[in-house]
Amino acid sequence: MDFFFNPDGIAIIGASNNSMKGGYHILNNTLGGYKGRVYPVNPGYETLLGLPCYPNLESTPGDFELAIYFINATSLPDTIDACAGKGTKGIIIESAGFAEVGDEGSKLQAECVRRARRHGIRLWGPNCMGLLDGHRRHVFSFMYTDLWKTLMAPGNVSYIVQSGMLSAGFMLMILERGGMGISKVCSIGNKCDVHETELLEYLIADPATEVIGLYAESIADPRRFMELCRGTKKPVIVLKGGRSPSGAKAAMSHTASLVGNHTITENAFRQAGVIPVRDITELMDFMRGFSKTRASSNHGGTAVVTFSGGGGIVTSDFLNDYGLPMARLSEETLRAVKEVFPPWMDPSNPVDLWPAVEKNGIERVYNQVMSAIMHDDNVDSLVLHLFSNWMEAGMLKSLAELKDSLAKPVVAWMVGMGERSREFRRGVEELGIPVFDEMGRGVSFLAAAKHHFHRRGPSSTAQ
Amino acid sequence: MDFFFNPDGIAIIGASNNSMKGGYHILNNTLGGYKGRVYPVNPGYETLLGLPCYPNLESTPGDFELAIYFINATSLPDTIDACAGKGTKGIIIESAGFAEVGDEGSKLQAECVRRARRHGIRLWGPNCMGLLDGHRRHVFSFMYTDLWKTLMAPGNVSYIVQSGMLSAGFMLMILERGGMGISKVCSIGNKCDVHETELLEYLIADPATEVIGLYAESIADPRRFMELCRGTKKPVIVLKGGRSPSGAKAAMSHTASLVGNHTITENAFRQAGVIPVRDITELMDFMRGFSKTRASSNHGGTAVVTFSGGGGIVTSDFLNDYGLPMARLSEETLRAVKEVFPPWMDPSNPVDLWPAVEKNGIERVYNQVMSAIMHDDNVDSLVLHLFSNWMEAGMLKSLAELKDSLAKPVVAWMVGMGERSREFRRGVEELGIPVFDEMGRGVSFLAAAKHHFHRRGPSSTAQ
Repeated sequence: MDFFFNPDGIAIIGASNNSMKGGYHILNNTLGGYKGRVYPVNPGYETLLGLPCYPNLESTPGDFELAIYFINATSLPDTIDACAGKGTKGIIIESAGFAEVGDEGSKLQAECVRRARRHGIRLWGPNCMGLLDGHRRHVFSFMYTDLWKTLMAPGNVSYIVQSGMLSAGFMLMILERGGMGISKVCSIGNKCDVHETELLEYLIADPATEVIGLYAESIADPRRFMELCRGTKKPVIVLKGGRSPSGAKAAMSHTASLVGNHTITENAFRQAGVIPVRDITELMDFMRGFSKTRASSNHGGTAVVTFSGGGGIVTSDFLNDYGLPMARLSEETLRAVKEVFPPWMDPSNPVDLWPAVEKNGIERVYNQVMSAIMHDDNVDSLVLHLFSNWMEAGMLKSLAELKDSLAKPVVAWMVGMGERSREFRRGVEELGIPVFDEMGRGVSFLAAAKHHFHRRGPSSTAQ
Repeated sequence: MDFFFNPDGIAIIGASNNSMKGGYHILNNTLGGYKGRVYPVNPGYETLLGLPCYPNLESTPGDFELAIYFINATSLPDTIDACAGKGTKGIIIESAGFAEVGDEGSKLQAECVRRARRHGIRLWGPNCMGLLDGHRRHVFSFMYTDLWKTLMAPGNVSYIVQSGMLSAGFMLMILERGGMGISKVCSIGNKCDVHETELLEYLIADPATEVIGLYAESIADPRRFMELCRGTKKPVIVLKGGRSPSGAKAAMSHTASLVGNHTITENAFRQAGVIPVRDITELMDFMRGFSKTRASSNHGGTAVVTFSGGGGIVTSDFLNDYGLPMARLSEETLRAVKEVFPPWMDPSNPVDLWPAVEKNGIERVYNQVMSAIMHDDNVDSLVLHLFSNWMEAGMLKSLAELKDSLAKPVVAWMVGMGERSREFRRGVEELGIPVFDEMGRGVSFLAAAKHHFHRRGPSSTAQ
């Protein structure tokens, strides 16, 4: 698979200088990060974006391990034959017009797979958005946005998406939301040859990947898929499309996917330790959460530190919903909290810090309470409520030190949505604490993380 | 109750010029919108923010219907007596130190209620953030943010929150999120006298209020509360804190609330047609959704218009989860869609417009498809997926016209989170289409709205 992510030479078939066309964006995105040889192929141009452009594959001056295909579906069989003469190992087919359009397209797609196999060439797609590599900054996709150039950070999260526009939209959501570094993004469309199960195996073995997300409408080689999930310590988070009869019907016309029986799939997922999600933002939130979270001891319960009595109560209710016990704070912790609390207030969990902060100032109160709680053996995890106009750098710094030394999952929920809040959120997430917009989502993630680490033990590398 | 929202004269007891203190913010916020007489009271100042300041209530030159109290709890009984000589009808007590701090505070609180009753004075709070009136721009609260001055729009949503910081944080979330106009906000804290049931009755009768939200840890006079909910066409959305044993315990120390048995409460809510939510963002999303949504015919099903096959599938799954049938598009609609679709693509619901847009341009495709769908008698509601970098003003305009003339609920889910997306979202919401960040939330709201309007019939005034 490496030749897809880091090829020695790339031909771009259907490159263009018209920025309304995907062929322009594939070339532009590729040149934005890839350092190797690039051969734009299009009989209509002499040069493209400063590179010589070639009328056909035969005329390129060198070989290329990867071809990216973005012309009419019907020309693909001939292109595969032409690639065979150029040392090509893989073709990413980003055009549509294959199995998803009916019988004729299915036949065409099957014929392409046959030819590629004969030549030992692997096919990626068709009907897809290609791939990204966050560490190498390789973007082999017609994604129309340039945002990745400024917003994409390398990281430990990889994901596979079986949907074109969804993968681009999802990438946009992730880039604009921030707080998550990218290892590999794989948009696999009709997955006529390379499919999610093979990619899962590749990503499990990939040292740059520690968290794997997947949107899929069907699972190829499900037995192998479940085996892989059972055997890895890396969290595998799956959003399965087509759970319902109408969703399954739509999946058939979308990517020609037979979704299978959802109840059977769901049971198999559960047994294999797959982490199921149902919403697209939930998939993103869980990927971001796992990218920052390491194992907890699982001895004790969850502490809640809040600025709002009401917020603490609602979080307690959510902890109960997701089967997470509240921590019984130790006598030592209660003493430390009592020191900064007003005399009329009895410390208990959830710990409402607002009256204490009014009395003793934010930095002293937070540092003393957080330190006591993070060192408390009865506490194995923490839900932290933050109020964006109300926190200080010193407090965050000491929180980061506590979190780093004590390996207990901390999740945050934050009030505030303006630019100031977004900056504050960035600061918190840079310290390794995932922030959730939905209070319930933070708790459901914490439950999933505790369950995963309890079952699998700590991942060796997760930060 | 009108004297709380629109009093003839206000005394602010504990006004200050120190912006670190709540007494400053109460005065500053009040002066930011209230046009009547304001008497700051504090023996430490001669003037405050350009107004004469009075050492005590007796020395104010005129009477005042409302007093706002922000000094030590223990001085409240004497203050009540002093107010009685000044024609005061209500006191908003924003200080803490009453029933929430234990026995002594409870006794003090009870004594204050007794004295106030004797004088015919109503008490609001204590331990609360006061109130806002979005139409009159009255902000009688120590809320520390000035954001309301620029971001608060008048509108049809009122809510009651039994939590201090939560009500301020919630207001901040609503202001920064935008898309919702405010009628009244009531933070009622320990609710020693004025409580949610009385306010519910007031808001049901209030012509400026069409949607009512509530966060409460206990319900005062539950029989009357349920009766009011049963008798109104206005949606009443309730987040009940303390559903779990640990949440209930926390509620006791927060606002001295006995939460009651949650199963009984939940059944009573259901029978009374209350719309229950569990998360704070969910409460906000539902309030915003109802503020824009009117009744549907409830004959037919939901259409899904998307730019992403995968997105359409996940939405179909959610519709199934929430018991909403997919619309079977009429022959006429299918013909209209077919006209703009590429020849290989068969129209069905969900309607994936991306390939058609690539072929025929966004404005033509959207206008033709949306018009056919909104006029289709088999369609009673629409879930619309939007891609923020990809829509145009003309298309939105015709959508607004369709929506306006056809009284079918439309909810939108949008990809994109940057400033450009937020602007686009503002445009969509100004057209009366609520936008949800969570795809599943949009569908669960639609289900709640259809259920509510089916049960109650259309509200006469909702826009």
